[in-house]
Amino acid sequence: MQKIDKSILSKVIKPRNPISYKGNYGRILIIAGSLHFGGAAILSSSAAVYSGAGLVTVATTPEKFVSLNTRIPEAMTIDYHNIMETLNSIRQSNVIVIGPGLGTSELTQSLINMVTENTTKDQTIIFDASALTEIAEKNISLTQISAHVILTPHQGEWQRLSKLEIADQSTENNLQSIQEIAPDSLLIVKKHLSEIYYNNKVEQISAGNPGMATGGMGDTLTGIIAAFVGQFGFSKNTVSAALFLHSFIADKIYKKNYVVLPEELINEIPSTMKKITTKSSK
Amino acid sequence: MQKIDKSILSKVIKPRNPISYKGNYGRILIIAGSLHFGGAAILSSSAAVYSGAGLVTVATTPEKFVSLNTRIPEAMTIDYHNIMETLNSIRQSNVIVIGPGLGTSELTQSLINMVTENTTKDQTIIFDASALTEIAEKNISLTQISAHVILTPHQGEWQRLSKLEIADQSTENNLQSIQEIAPDSLLIVKKHLSEIYYNNKVEQISAGNPGMATGGMGDTLTGIIAAFVGQFGFSKNTVSAALFLHSFIADKIYKKNYVVLPEELINEIPSTMKKITTKSSK
Amino acid sequence: MQKIDKSILSKVIKPRNPISYKGNYGRILIIAGSLHFGGAAILSSSAAVYSGAGLVTVATTPEKFVSLNTRIPEAMTIDYHNIMETLNSIRQSNVIVIGPGLGTSELTQSLINMVTENTTKDQTIIFDASALTEIAEKNISLTQISAHVILTPHQGEWQRLSKLEIADQSTENNLQSIQEIAPDSLLIVKKHLSEIYYNNKVEQISAGNPGMATGGMGDTLTGIIAAFVGQFGFSKNTVSAALFLHSFIADKIYKKNYVVLPEELINEIPSTMKKITTKSSK
Amino acid sequence: MQKIDKSILSKVIKPRNPISYKGNYGRILIIAGSLHFGGAAILSSSAAVYSGAGLVTVATTPEKFVSLNTRIPEAMTIDYHNIMETLNSIRQSNVIVIGPGLGTSELTQSLINMVTENTTKDQTIIFDASALTEIAEKNISLTQISAHVILTPHQGEWQRLSKLEIADQSTENNLQSIQEIAPDSLLIVKKHLSEIYYNNKVEQISAGNPGMATGGMGDTLTGIIAAFVGQFGFSKNTVSAALFLHSFIADKIYKKNYVVLPEELINEIPSTMKKITTKSSK
Repeated sequence: MQKIDKSILSKVIKPRNPISYKGNYGRILIIAGSLHFGGAAILSSSAAVYSGAGLVTVATTPEKFVSLNTRIPEAMTIDYHNIMETLNSIRQSNVIVIGPGLGTSELTQSLINMVTENTTKDQTIIFDASALTEIAEKNISLTQISAHVILTPHQGEWQRLSKLEIADQSTENNLQSIQEIAPDSLLIVKKHLSEIYYNNKVEQISAGNPGMATGGMGDTLTGIIAAFVGQFGFSKNTVSAALFLHSFIADKIYKKNYVVLPEELINEIPSTMKKITTKSSK
Repeated sequence: MQKIDKSILSKVIKPRNPISYKGNYGRILIIAGSLHFGGAAILSSSAAVYSGAGLVTVATTPEKFVSLNTRIPEAMTIDYHNIMETLNSIRQSNVIVIGPGLGTSELTQSLINMVTENTTKDQTIIFDASALTEIAEKNISLTQISAHVILTPHQGEWQRLSKLEIADQSTENNLQSIQEIAPDSLLIVKKHLSEIYYNNKVEQISAGNPGMATGGMGDTLTGIIAAFVGQFGFSKNTVSAALFLHSFIADKIYKKNYVVLPEELINEIPSTMKKITTKSSK
Repeated sequence: MQKIDKSILSKVIKPRNPISYKGNYGRILIIAGSLHFGGAAILSSSAAVYSGAGLVTVATTPEKFVSLNTRIPEAMTIDYHNIMETLNSIRQSNVIVIGPGLGTSELTQSLINMVTENTTKDQTIIFDASALTEIAEKNISLTQISAHVILTPHQGEWQRLSKLEIADQSTENNLQSIQEIAPDSLLIVKKHLSEIYYNNKVEQISAGNPGMATGGMGDTLTGIIAAFVGQFGFSKNTVSAALFLHSFIADKIYKKNYVVLPEELINEIPSTMKKITTKSSK
Repeated sequence: MQKIDKSILSKVIKPRNPISYKGNYGRILIIAGSLHFGGAAILSSSAAVYSGAGLVTVATTPEKFVSLNTRIPEAMTIDYHNIMETLNSIRQSNVIVIGPGLGTSELTQSLINMVTENTTKDQTIIFDASALTEIAEKNISLTQISAHVILTPHQGEWQRLSKLEIADQSTENNLQSIQEIAPDSLLIVKKHLSEIYYNNKVEQISAGNPGMATGGMGDTLTGIIAAFVGQFGFSKNTVSAALFLHSFIADKIYKKNYVVLPEELINEIPSTMKKITTKSSK
């Protein structure tokens, strides 16, 4: 199995064009959060902003606006109960994340449908967390989506989606399963040494540590992927670089800390990305 | 009386298994907070997250969701007025903390009963702060609990529980009293040089300072204990290590600060725990 | 075209008179924020406070009071739906900012009218963001305003105001257009190497970078301009210094970070301003 | 006029007794905040906690609980509209601050009366900000109060209280005026080189700078004074030390910053206090 190593970072993260504007760096919509899960939307949107996304909007329940505004004033907020606004925002965004802290509910189902039915081939949808569980439970089909699709299950979520027990999640089985579920999609199976499945191939990350076994780590990764696709375009390399950066920073933090806290990881993104462009431009 | 010293830390805090997941590091439920005491839940849950707990849920009053989400987005929140959700969460958790900032009320009493009646011997309950006062005032019996029990009173709370005046809180009297109140439980009496009572024995901590005499210090300790039991399992050593770590970090901060603020103590936990595993693994 | 360089900073930013009070450093009113855009008011008012404004009041919707109080306790808050209070605050302020995150609505229009009709020649109005779009959409006249006027559009907003396509926004066309729209006003066109138009002349800033292409950068600039006019009086030099300081700090941050986050820029203002007065006083 | 210099700090700030508890360091009640002024309560209570106060409670309007909990989880909160709770808290506190951000209203007047009528000679009341304006406007008498009284007006507030124009605020006039208004009280007139009047004598502080001319500076001072009286007892020296510490830290910050922000000043309190006890104990 091919390994993803540090060289992916300088292949993807490029110095910015001096003459450029917010619009050049992606419009990201993050559909996330519910009454009990307020932090997921904060961590996802913070990770997207700190990773360089041009414009970040969070569609969530209004009870979460105050904590979002307080923690990440750079992000805008809309109410996902408002169909017209949510639909407008879906259509205007380059990347749509759906799932972090969303919970499973009829609302989640209808938001998934709204996203899948109102996006085109120039857009990217990232299904994460609760959205993956909802898709599994309601047997929502992912085969008719025009947009690029990224799925980011951990092993338990992948079991629900693929019906493969964790012990049976071999690369062959996973390749076959994703072909049936969403043939053109990019799949990340998050675990010790996460794997990326795309175009009938699989690659494995060579970074990561057990200090990352903490709440909010997945939400943070999703925000980084969204920002990277918004800035560097959808491709396997773009997603691989996002996945690697997340673990690369976590490994640096883990050297000095027993646990890797999402907030600390997020704070390190801008300087780590800069170092990569500075080295690679020499 | 046997002393608890720094050696307890490396006995308990072990390097993490590279192949491990959030579920391996404990599901912690913290039943805490009320209208007037919003900070206690923030400090307890932050301490638990920063000490490495895998999944932390706070059951509190919904008015406190915003400040919790803002301060500690890694934690989930549920409404403790919702009986079914609270019950589900109690049953799914490895460690249940009850008391910080909860206040004394009929609700507190019914939450204590819900916890004691719906836990089994594989779980640990930590009774703290308001829960201890409620137990004393309402004469709630602690003798029929299946779960492991930890009690964390300061001297005033212990007086209410044991009916022993502070001057009469000798180790002999304390040992006899805890035998009557909750014979199999682990008791911490918090004071200058705190003591741990368990299995008819007593040990004393050899750390701590008067800069810790500030609001929120106890809530912080409780969060550390919960995370440690969640990760390292219930035992006297686990609790001793949590108690010692709390004072050990506080002593380091006190060298440069007139008061030891809970927020600063919490921030120091991940790096202090790491140093212990790095030294002990050499 | 004349360049604005670092020398502008020490011309404008002067050491403070030892005998002076909050009232000497400007009363700033920032009319900003709406349900979906809560962060803009936070960033504008924080930038104003950190730039040395004496007294900062934010007129906004009450749903945003909590996040404002939490992030920038130094600022006061009023409800812009309360006409009497807003009118009082407009009349008592030296500088009125209107627009960041305000959205376009009838309320925005009526607030713009309230500001233009209730200010005198000793005051300064800064029209920003949503206010500029509202002015363009509703053809609100800016030719009868007694107060000093500053307009801070980016190229897209300037297109809406001037009806000049971005490709046609030459200095000649811009000069002619601002003469028609608001002849005595000071215009900043924000872009790669922003330009200041005033008194039929144009100058260009020689600082800035593409890491500034992130949400909230404009709100931050507006807050700095407001604080500078409040402290150093309305003049082209005052506004040029504010514009330059914003990009100057951003360039310093960009050396070590892939994106320049508003929060980090704001934190650097007090020390950067101090360095300028320390050098210039030698 | 006698000068207050750095030597006052080590006279007052003493190393803590190893065997001591939260109750030994004062119960502080801060009656503060209103809909438009949410930050004052945050800054006052933060300053009190960071200065070592044992237990800090804020009586405010419930809309401000969330921002208080978020910013300073160490403090408790009560609703000042609840007469019984407020009265209980007044009676149980060693120090009662009334005024920061309270606004002038009938509620403010009734809270002032509640405080003056329900305190005894072992307690200290600090009248600040809005409370001083309310006292001046409603001619509330301060001559029949049993508790120690501290008044902390700036020159404008002192003018309202004393009817002395700022130009006429000579030490002789001030001494005479405070004799009439509140003969046994301690008066601080805040200005460039603030003055303390007590027992028919006056002293002047030899510290401070114009970077302190920013919102929230007064609220911060009040919190420090409250914590100092709570820990070290009411005396002219105690208040002088609090006043000096505030300006002393501000002067240190001002060396590197154009403005002195309250949040930064508050963060420096614990380490500055520690340095004083370390030096003085050698």
